[in-house]
Amino acid sequence: MRPLAALTAALAAALAAVAPAAAQDLAVREIGSFHIGGRTVTLQGLPVQEITFTAGAPPFRYDPNGQFQVEQMYVQYVKLAAPRARYPLLMWHGGGLTGVTWETTPDGRPGWQMAFLRAGHDVYVSDAVERGRSGWARYPEIFPTPPIFRPLAEGWNLFRVGPADGWDPDPAKRRAYPSTQFPVAAWDQFGKQSVPRWVTTDAAIQAAYNDLVQRVCPCVIMVHSQGGNFGFNAALAAPDKVRALIAIEPSGAPDPARAEAARVREIPHLVVWGDFIEGHALWPRLVANVARWQKAIADAGGRADTLDLPKEGMAGNSHMLMMDRNSDAIAARIQDWIVARGLMR
Amino acid sequence: MRPLAALTAALAAALAAVAPAAAQDLAVREIGSFHIGGRTVTLQGLPVQEITFTAGAPPFRYDPNGQFQVEQMYVQYVKLAAPRARYPLLMWHGGGLTGVTWETTPDGRPGWQMAFLRAGHDVYVSDAVERGRSGWARYPEIFPTPPIFRPLAEGWNLFRVGPADGWDPDPAKRRAYPSTQFPVAAWDQFGKQSVPRWVTTDAAIQAAYNDLVQRVCPCVIMVHSQGGNFGFNAALAAPDKVRALIAIEPSGAPDPARAEAARVREIPHLVVWGDFIEGHALWPRLVANVARWQKAIADAGGRADTLDLPKEGMAGNSHMLMMDRNSDAIAARIQDWIVARGLMR
Repeated sequence: MRPLAALTAALAAALAAVAPAAAQDLAVREIGSFHIGGRTVTLQGLPVQEITFTAGAPPFRYDPNGQFQVEQMYVQYVKLAAPRARYPLLMWHGGGLTGVTWETTPDGRPGWQMAFLRAGHDVYVSDAVERGRSGWARYPEIFPTPPIFRPLAEGWNLFRVGPADGWDPDPAKRRAYPSTQFPVAAWDQFGKQSVPRWVTTDAAIQAAYNDLVQRVCPCVIMVHSQGGNFGFNAALAAPDKVRALIAIEPSGAPDPARAEAARVREIPHLVVWGDFIEGHALWPRLVANVARWQKAIADAGGRADTLDLPKEGMAGNSHMLMMDRNSDAIAARIQDWIVARGLMR
Repeated sequence: MRPLAALTAALAAALAAVAPAAAQDLAVREIGSFHIGGRTVTLQGLPVQEITFTAGAPPFRYDPNGQFQVEQMYVQYVKLAAPRARYPLLMWHGGGLTGVTWETTPDGRPGWQMAFLRAGHDVYVSDAVERGRSGWARYPEIFPTPPIFRPLAEGWNLFRVGPADGWDPDPAKRRAYPSTQFPVAAWDQFGKQSVPRWVTTDAAIQAAYNDLVQRVCPCVIMVHSQGGNFGFNAALAAPDKVRALIAIEPSGAPDPARAEAARVREIPHLVVWGDFIEGHALWPRLVANVARWQKAIADAGGRADTLDLPKEGMAGNSHMLMMDRNSDAIAARIQDWIVARGLMR
């Protein structure tokens, strides 16, 4: 245990420090991306239009019929020259957002992509099907419904930054929880990370994630919020490929009555929760659903740990805890768990 | 000139080589992203809905009214530990696509983001407003129209991969130009990079690009296709901030009768064209528009070079020349031009 403990301490120090130049530089082998999954759909019978694409360009005849690629998923990777982690780390965002969740904080600090790169992981950040760079498909011809858009107000209480009656369109009048770790002055900047989402695309999202697992794993998967269900189910679909699952504030989990927890008993699970859950209108039910799945894994002889931040003395964290002011300290705690699971070289 | 020539040769060799491990690794200071620009819009009077966000989660009351952030732009950066370029390189994609244009080729080789990082540039890759990770706004309430979607067939001739009658839904039956450099077997994979686009958002796109120039420049800007107009106009808007403009197959340019080319005469311009333009139904007109702007810059005492690849002995390039099989060789030629302009340290 001595070398592991020393490594943990070194990593925690590195994560906590304010960028002291060269010591934190990364040796990067390659940065790139790819799209995976999806299918081809053919549309016909739609009217032809004449469109000017670019100011100054001649008009162009636009025929919306034909073949389209739909339901593919975008994945960006950063591969280190000498990763210290045994397996790549896949980061799957939550609903209404994209991989940007992991890249930055709304107040401009480096995100967990950078934190876990510095900790020695190759990192794959994806945008779920129909989000961000994955593109989306025409409706109602391909997707049956329009998407939904998240108002700036919605996350204020849903993401446990402030009380339900604490929202105000005027930033100066908003009331956050006094001890919140979320950088509240950057709330509207956080809103810029929002993208539309569909509520009818779960199967397509899951299929592309499962394809990704087959392509790049064995791996460790880190999921957030809506990504929780996709991660738990990806582990069920490919238990031989997933070496650990880290669920940050997962909004759902499989029902043990319908999914066989024994399938994932070899996969260590970690669930991380922030603050302000008790008494919230929604979150206690979501936590109970996840706890039920954790218990099923444990009952099957597996490991499904919980990192309850308030119980560990870290108060004030929101649902977006990778963006909270103490995000680096939380990343360090998760890295400790990864080290303890033997997932670093 | 001797040290510059030696540097050029070394860079070209590095770009042309097939990854020989450590020599090509990057020392990276930071990877991150931000959103810039945009505005807040308030919607009211839309009906409230009840929605289940995640399988297993309780239903959620969705109120689509309220404040929304719209027309912001996503920007991802990779900062080197010791950039050799004097200024960061901003890469702006073309229509119907995202920053993925610069990240990869559809047959899975590293993209120009990686090529120019290896050449020593800090690189900022953005998604234009309403594309990719920039998100998009509800229509018809905010954007007046629906977007358009590009069928797989459309680019075959528009991007000069094959003749107008060479498309077939069956990949085995498609006819490309015999000498094409585009990796035609990956055409459907390239289709996965497509995203919907609006034709009513030019002003918002330009505004966000101009904001980006104010934030991160002085800089060198590289644009592609629809990005051409945005780049030329960004230079006109901030001639003191743009140190060079490299336009890859720009689909438009300012009209000298309406824009003052003398404003940009201190900014070296380079326009890069691929093959198969002569006799094409659309491209000769687009090239003529751009040539008119180049002539206006030259007439005003400025520099607006052309890199006509077929004339330089590089045959077969498509409109997507950063994805063509000889993409690294083209990047090296552009890097030569950057070096010759004194833009490297």
